[in-house]
Amino acid sequence: MKENRLNRVAKGMEAMGLAQILVSSPASVYYLTGTWVEPGERMLALYIHKSGDAKLFANRMFALSGSVDAPLVEFDDTEDAAKILADALRPGAIGIDKLWPSQFTIRLMDARGDIRPVLGSRPVDDARMRKDAEEIALMRESSRKNDAAIALAMESVQARATEKGVADAYERAAASVGGAGSSFPPLICFGRNTAEPHHSTDTTELRPGDAVILDVGLSWNRYASDMTRTAFFGEPSDEQRRVHDIVVKANAAGRAAARPGVPMREIDRAARKVIEDAGYGPYFIHRTGHGIGLEVHEPPDASAVSDVIAAPGMVFSVEPGIYLPGRFGVREEDLVLITGDGAETFNHFPHEMRIL
Amino acid sequence: MKENRLNRVAKGMEAMGLAQILVSSPASVYYLTGTWVEPGERMLALYIHKSGDAKLFANRMFALSGSVDAPLVEFDDTEDAAKILADALRPGAIGIDKLWPSQFTIRLMDARGDIRPVLGSRPVDDARMRKDAEEIALMRESSRKNDAAIALAMESVQARATEKGVADAYERAAASVGGAGSSFPPLICFGRNTAEPHHSTDTTELRPGDAVILDVGLSWNRYASDMTRTAFFGEPSDEQRRVHDIVVKANAAGRAAARPGVPMREIDRAARKVIEDAGYGPYFIHRTGHGIGLEVHEPPDASAVSDVIAAPGMVFSVEPGIYLPGRFGVREEDLVLITGDGAETFNHFPHEMRIL
Repeated sequence: MKENRLNRVAKGMEAMGLAQILVSSPASVYYLTGTWVEPGERMLALYIHKSGDAKLFANRMFALSGSVDAPLVEFDDTEDAAKILADALRPGAIGIDKLWPSQFTIRLMDARGDIRPVLGSRPVDDARMRKDAEEIALMRESSRKNDAAIALAMESVQARATEKGVADAYERAAASVGGAGSSFPPLICFGRNTAEPHHSTDTTELRPGDAVILDVGLSWNRYASDMTRTAFFGEPSDEQRRVHDIVVKANAAGRAAARPGVPMREIDRAARKVIEDAGYGPYFIHRTGHGIGLEVHEPPDASAVSDVIAAPGMVFSVEPGIYLPGRFGVREEDLVLITGDGAETFNHFPHEMRIL
Repeated sequence: MKENRLNRVAKGMEAMGLAQILVSSPASVYYLTGTWVEPGERMLALYIHKSGDAKLFANRMFALSGSVDAPLVEFDDTEDAAKILADALRPGAIGIDKLWPSQFTIRLMDARGDIRPVLGSRPVDDARMRKDAEEIALMRESSRKNDAAIALAMESVQARATEKGVADAYERAAASVGGAGSSFPPLICFGRNTAEPHHSTDTTELRPGDAVILDVGLSWNRYASDMTRTAFFGEPSDEQRRVHDIVVKANAAGRAAARPGVPMREIDRAARKVIEDAGYGPYFIHRTGHGIGLEVHEPPDASAVSDVIAAPGMVFSVEPGIYLPGRFGVREEDLVLITGDGAETFNHFPHEMRIL
C-alpha cells in the first residue's frame, strides 16, 4: 500500500465518522495500491478500516498476486465473491464507493444483516483532490508532453485537412513524445463547429477563415493532461481577433485568481468577469474548469456553485470560452496547480493568436 | 411505453415475486421506452410496478419531454433526484438494476426506511433475451450489413497493410453500407497475434504466411452485429489448413445443435466436441458464444456452465476457435437466432478458406 496516501484516507474516514469503507473505482484503487484493474462485471473492492488495516478483494483472473502493493484476498468465478467480502466486514456502517454496481451492495446486505451501507467515497476523493509530490511531478510532465504534442498537431492544420485528420495527427504526436495514448478523444473543431462546445470530431474540411479549436490531452504514467488552443486558418476577422483577445485575458484572469484559500467559485468569477465586462457573458456557457488527475474529470470544479476552497496540491483546468452560435467559438485552456503561495501553470504553449 | 414488452416484464416480475423494480441500464430503458439516454453521473430510472404502472425519472437536461414514450417525471440539478424517486416507491422490496451506481440505492434507503433493495434486473433481462419480431428484423439487417462490410474490409488486407489500417477500412466499410458505427472496436489480428484471443488491434504489419482474423460488428438501429472470419495471406501451411477446417466444422456443429429446448451448454458441447475429437481441445480456451442484441454481450451465454434453455427469439454468437500459442489462431463466428423449430444463421459470408 501507498502508506502516506492510506494514512490520509484513514484520517478522512476518522473526520467523517466512518470506521470502514470499500474503495472500488479503478482510479482510486490504483491511487492506493499502484495497480490499475478494470474489473468489468467482476467484483473488485479495497477494504479499508480506519486503523489502516486494508485488504484488496479481487478475482484470481486479474492475476494480481505478486504485483499489487496490498494484502490480497483472491477468489475465482466459482466462488461467491460478495460472501467472501461480507465475511470480512465489521458490523455497523460501511462506506460504499459511489459508482460501485448496486448488485454488490445488495449482496453484501443479503449476507450481513448487521451492516448498513452509507456513501463512502469522500475520504479517497478528498485525498486524491490534493496531489502529492509524486503526482505533481507526473502531471507536470504529462502537460509538458501535451505542449509538445499540440505543437506537432498544429502543423497538420493545412488546406484540405479534416477534423479527424488533425485528431489522428495529435494521436501520432502524443505517441511520438512518449505519451501512452490520449486521455480523451481529441476534440478538434473547424469553422462553425467551434461554436459548439460539445461538437464531436468529424470529417469536416478546413476552409479559409475558419477558427480551429484543438482540445487535447494525453496520459503519462496514468496522469491526464488537457489543454485547448484556438487558432485561425487565414486572416481572422476583427471580431475573431477581439473574441480571441478577451478569452486569452479571461484565461489569464482565472489563473491569476488561483491561490490557496480562495473559493474555487471565485476563480470562475474572475474568468467570467472579463467575458461579461466585454459584453459576451451570455456566450460563456459552461463552468470555468474541472479538476484532473488520474481521471480527466474529478474534483474540484471551478464553477459558480463550487464550495471547495483552493488548497495546495489541487490541479484543475482554467478554460473560459465564448461561443457565437452558427459563427465561431474560442476556448483557451491550461492546467493549474495550487502551490503553497499561489499557482503554477503546467502549460507553456503560448496563447498568442496563431494564424495558420 | 412499448406495451407488449412492458407486459412481458410485468409477468416476469409477478413470477419472481417482485411488486416493483427500477430499470436503469440505458439499453433496458431504450428497450421499454424507445429512447436511449446515457445519464453520466446523473440519475435515470424507469419505475415499473407489477400492475404495469411505469414512470421514467429523468433530469430535465436530457430533454426527453415530448420525445420519450413513457410518463415522465423530470427534475433538475438543483433538486434532490433520489428523494423525488423515493417518494414514488411503494413500501417493501424494490428490485434494483444490477449496475445502477450504489450512490442512488443508498440515497433511496436513506430517504425511505420502509423499502428493501433486492436484485431486480432479471424481469427485463429475461424479456430482452427473447427478441420480438421487430428486434429480429433489425438484427438480421445488422448482420446483413456486417456481411457486406467484412467483404469490403477483406479487400484492404494487402501487402504492407497494418492491423489498424484494416480496422479503419472496416469502419469506413461499415459506414458505407449504412451502419451507425462499429458495435465494438474492430479486432484485427495478423500472424502470431491471431493466437491471442484478447489481442488489441495495433500497428503490426502483414507478412506472407500470416493468418488474419477479422472480428467485427456494426450497429444498426441500436442492434449489434458481430462476426469473425479467419483468412490467410499467401499460401497457408498444411496445419493452418487443417486447423481452419476443424474450426469451420466446429462452427457448423454448434449452429446445427441450436434449436428450441436444447440447453445452451449443449451448443457449446457440440462445437467443442469437434475440436476435442481433432486433438485441439486444450487450445479452445473460451466459451462458444454470447448473447447479443442492444448490447454486444448480453444473456444467454453458450458456455459449458449455462443453464439457459434455448428458446425462440434468442440470438447469440457461435464462435469456436483454436489458438496455438506463439504461432497462429483461427476463429469463425456467426450469429444465430433460435426459431420455432430450429435456428437461423444471420451471417452468410462464406466460411471457405480464403487466401488473400
